[in-house]
Amino acid sequence: MLDYKLLHALATVIECGGFERAGDALGLSQSAVSQRIKSLEVRLGQPVLIRHPELHPTPAGQRLLNHYQQVQLLERDLRTTLPTLGESAPRLRIAINADSLVTWWADAVGELCRAEGLLLDLVVEDQDVGLKRLRDGDVAACLCASPQPIAGARCVPLGEMAYQPLATPDYIARHFPHGPSIDAFRQAPAIVFGPHDQLQHRFLAQCGYHGSFPYHLCPSSEGFVRLALAGMGYGMIPQMMQADALVAEGRLASIAPGESLSVPLYWHFWRHSGNVLERLTRALGQVTLK
Amino acid sequence: MLDYKLLHALATVIECGGFERAGDALGLSQSAVSQRIKSLEVRLGQPVLIRHPELHPTPAGQRLLNHYQQVQLLERDLRTTLPTLGESAPRLRIAINADSLVTWWADAVGELCRAEGLLLDLVVEDQDVGLKRLRDGDVAACLCASPQPIAGARCVPLGEMAYQPLATPDYIARHFPHGPSIDAFRQAPAIVFGPHDQLQHRFLAQCGYHGSFPYHLCPSSEGFVRLALAGMGYGMIPQMMQADALVAEGRLASIAPGESLSVPLYWHFWRHSGNVLERLTRALGQVTLK
Repeated sequence: MLDYKLLHALATVIECGGFERAGDALGLSQSAVSQRIKSLEVRLGQPVLIRHPELHPTPAGQRLLNHYQQVQLLERDLRTTLPTLGESAPRLRIAINADSLVTWWADAVGELCRAEGLLLDLVVEDQDVGLKRLRDGDVAACLCASPQPIAGARCVPLGEMAYQPLATPDYIARHFPHGPSIDAFRQAPAIVFGPHDQLQHRFLAQCGYHGSFPYHLCPSSEGFVRLALAGMGYGMIPQMMQADALVAEGRLASIAPGESLSVPLYWHFWRHSGNVLERLTRALGQVTLK
Repeated sequence: MLDYKLLHALATVIECGGFERAGDALGLSQSAVSQRIKSLEVRLGQPVLIRHPELHPTPAGQRLLNHYQQVQLLERDLRTTLPTLGESAPRLRIAINADSLVTWWADAVGELCRAEGLLLDLVVEDQDVGLKRLRDGDVAACLCASPQPIAGARCVPLGEMAYQPLATPDYIARHFPHGPSIDAFRQAPAIVFGPHDQLQHRFLAQCGYHGSFPYHLCPSSEGFVRLALAGMGYGMIPQMMQADALVAEGRLASIAPGESLSVPLYWHFWRHSGNVLERLTRALGQVTLK
């Protein structure tokens, strides 16, 4: 059996952002906290924390924290049946695509989190890579575009998010005066979320264009819309992200009216992480995407 | 002298998201592109690309790409004085804090980017760590909270962003019925941007509380506001991010009226990355933060 006192010290150091604060929280001296981290590292044969330039867990430390969290989730269920055990509030680590996080996510899970005192540790991942985090045991659940099931996990489809290629009317007049064309696609600056984001490539392939094109990289959903609104490029913007309102106000328009892309979303989670994940899954089942 | 044909192949593979597409863009066969990447790796004695599960540069590959970009920036200046050389559009890699990206950034730089055909590669970093990227040569400029100058770079102060601790009125009635207190801070769920984010800790220290507290982790500025609006916690929200409007509408309120935090912002950039950075710096000088 692992010594959970040591894991608790590790989690507290990360949570509090330092050894001294962790000591205060645990009612221990700073050196007692250091000693616990050291014991963990000796047992593991490798470091669990990187101290400089800023405090963060090593990959091994992250695995330990994730395991600690899963054990806490199981304890949470136990406490439901044995309420005299007292209360705790573990954080549930979830990988999520940025566009869901800035649109429907909080409304879907807010009520459950409030009612159960559930805390989330959200990790933003491109929709095509979050699943790897789940497979690696780095998160307890993952919301992503891949339907591929992984051993030991369940996969629940949630629907699809629709994306349209939007830009300012000025931008369209400058770069697409004659509508979409191979020449225009080759020269018009686009906005791409990140190096793993294939939405823009998929959209261009759908329009019959397979070459290279100039683009900004902007790994923030809201920042992405801001760049589009400033006339810096066109980008695939989710309909749920005020796109309809921005189009209705005349601030954005489609560079290729009628063209859109749908991205399916799937919820993957470990089967044995406890009932709270089942309840979260039920809450997500109520969502209507578009 | 480096063989820039090889660096160009590497940049194109990353831009196009694959060897086949890069071949199309370069007018080469897929195997000719592979051969160029391989030559680069042989010369360097280590891989520049990771192919599975998704294509991305290794840290060494990233350094090469950054160097390639800096050389392109210098070429851009050269082209201004020798216009017959033809045109190119390198991407400028910049580390930026998330809250700037979703508020004032695009309006400040949009006009310059449009006028010069300048493309950005934005890397979102916590305000306290972006500088490390600049020091490592991973970005050409960095917008962050640290005034600490680094050798070879200039540092320009841009002003301060103000943050207030906001939550829904319901949340405040539930968790802070008698206003802020040590007991309330110990139990009320907060929202923290990420493990490097010290804003919440600074705010609590300012209120005289130094212990641990429950919190969600949400590394997305807009997602952060969504969690607050869903009543999941209170969080430090920038005034520039519609905070005043949300407070005026009664959707959010301060848990500690009168308390706020100011985060200074500084623009750091390499001195010898070309004139475009000078012009970008002038554009940023026009910004009024609050």
